[in-house]
Amino acid sequence: MIIDIHGHYTTAPAQLAAWRDLQVKFANGTGPQPDPNSLHISDDDIRQTIEENQLRLMNERGSDVTVFSPRASFMAHHIGDLAISSTWARICNDLCYRVNQLFPDRFLMGAMLPQSPGADPATSVPELVRVVEELGAVTVNLNPDPSGGHWTMPPLTDRTWYPIYEKLVEYEIPAMIHVSTSCNPAFHTTGAHYLNADTTAFMQLVQGDLFKDFPDLKIVIPHGGGAVPYHWGRFRGLAMALKKPELEEHVMNNVFFDTCVYHQPGIDLLTRVIPTKNILFASEMVGAVRDIDPRTGHYFDDTKRYVDATPNLDDAQRTAIFSENARRVYPRVDRALAAQGL
Amino acid sequence: MIIDIHGHYTTAPAQLAAWRDLQVKFANGTGPQPDPNSLHISDDDIRQTIEENQLRLMNERGSDVTVFSPRASFMAHHIGDLAISSTWARICNDLCYRVNQLFPDRFLMGAMLPQSPGADPATSVPELVRVVEELGAVTVNLNPDPSGGHWTMPPLTDRTWYPIYEKLVEYEIPAMIHVSTSCNPAFHTTGAHYLNADTTAFMQLVQGDLFKDFPDLKIVIPHGGGAVPYHWGRFRGLAMALKKPELEEHVMNNVFFDTCVYHQPGIDLLTRVIPTKNILFASEMVGAVRDIDPRTGHYFDDTKRYVDATPNLDDAQRTAIFSENARRVYPRVDRALAAQGL
Repeated sequence: MIIDIHGHYTTAPAQLAAWRDLQVKFANGTGPQPDPNSLHISDDDIRQTIEENQLRLMNERGSDVTVFSPRASFMAHHIGDLAISSTWARICNDLCYRVNQLFPDRFLMGAMLPQSPGADPATSVPELVRVVEELGAVTVNLNPDPSGGHWTMPPLTDRTWYPIYEKLVEYEIPAMIHVSTSCNPAFHTTGAHYLNADTTAFMQLVQGDLFKDFPDLKIVIPHGGGAVPYHWGRFRGLAMALKKPELEEHVMNNVFFDTCVYHQPGIDLLTRVIPTKNILFASEMVGAVRDIDPRTGHYFDDTKRYVDATPNLDDAQRTAIFSENARRVYPRVDRALAAQGL
Repeated sequence: MIIDIHGHYTTAPAQLAAWRDLQVKFANGTGPQPDPNSLHISDDDIRQTIEENQLRLMNERGSDVTVFSPRASFMAHHIGDLAISSTWARICNDLCYRVNQLFPDRFLMGAMLPQSPGADPATSVPELVRVVEELGAVTVNLNPDPSGGHWTMPPLTDRTWYPIYEKLVEYEIPAMIHVSTSCNPAFHTTGAHYLNADTTAFMQLVQGDLFKDFPDLKIVIPHGGGAVPYHWGRFRGLAMALKKPELEEHVMNNVFFDTCVYHQPGIDLLTRVIPTKNILFASEMVGAVRDIDPRTGHYFDDTKRYVDATPNLDDAQRTAIFSENARRVYPRVDRALAAQGL
């Protein structure tokens, strides 16, 4: 079995973006407040956008199940206020729930949170409760920078984030650290802001002692951990300078990197440097990089090929990365699949 | 010959920091303006701090020449205004000039610029002219974020930066992209902000067409290029999506990465992915990571060991990375060494 722990509904029906445009106008004071009930997306609309895109590619590439959350760049927590984000998160999460309900053996639900710049993270807890208890979400995406590139929130180790962590631990749900669209012209969204956020979050965790307070908290850092595995020696050295234990002991019982690294040498480095138990298969397909590499004839984001081809893994390690680690780190993935005999 | 293109005067005599403290107090309105002439550092002070630190380690590790610029984290362009930064840059640059004059066959001078948040980059040109024409600087460090982690400047491809580039091209001087201390609590200075800046700068260059306007401009991205080589497939794919040519054609005639990557797998990745002609030997010693790796018994930042040990390079490629590339990318390094028969 192959579980892809990182997919977003980047191909949602056009009605969703049209409704969001109205909401953005309202947030900007240039239009009336749109009614969530005015958004109509049929099951057939959802089936079509999934079957023609993610499901088709999953079948072509041989992956079985995707943990599927709202489009990351569309979270855009910087738009409007908490009320705007709450309405938008609810709509996007409900849509991912419907994908899960239409394709229960292929898509499990991840959720976004209704974060907003300056809003206390505790304000996200009610939606977190709803998506888990009512919709069966198996994970949430946690944005360390809801400002969209201005980085106005305290580090993830700050106690203001603790109400979210308490719920995550209670629900046995890992959080994926994932920023959204950059509205800072210095940062390209997928070429800089995403990777920077991964690196930044990891270093925040190295600086702090969050896992002393939450020994069972699981944090997934996507995009191969940003710059971290490539600079593993730097991070080990910085941990030493900060009088922390070795990274394996300090953070790697709680932190996991996905395989969204879009070339063979990158996956070779990841699998050489990072313990197998900390690596989770993912592609973020259909995502930031959608083209076929003219040098290989394969999609850049067909990460299964790189994991298959790397000389650093034996069969048992591949099985761990492709599915066993995900079932361990996401207990609700395991239970959802087990309930279906998978 | 081994040329380390990335060293900072991190070990400057304590009088320097004491003077800066006075200047920071003045900038904060809590003290009188200190007189630059009140700062006294003797040649013996300089000799001692160099001989006991950088020069000792250079001799132990077998590197011959270091391009040596003011301490990066001390540039702190976010403090005060343009006048504060101008005075401070002048002091720090003069000190690096004295290191060069005391050890002309071992240290060549790099310079900082008197950048300041919101100040037009053109205001840095007079100091740029001074350090090259009067002090013989072979490169300058260019800070893409003088705000110290708030990223308030436009991308490096913006025309506001062009007056600096015009001078760099005229002088045949490469710029190293290097941020300074982060005053944003989200970003650890050396564990996040430095690496993020490297990644951010590269993506800005990918998005733009700066080298159409400046075909002879040379940009050095330190710390192994941040996250870029590890995510080379992502950047190739993003360039495709942006309708840009392959990276080798689009930016790699002008962009160079150093070897400040502090473990063997990182250097192996760098040398596997990035063309040899684009890699410049460096250690940033004495810098962010000063400890000995307990697993190898060697300094994390003894990057020569990794370059020596990587199976990806033959002798000719090692020679290119250790010295030939630096002499080509930094024509003033070549001339300064040639004038000494080196």
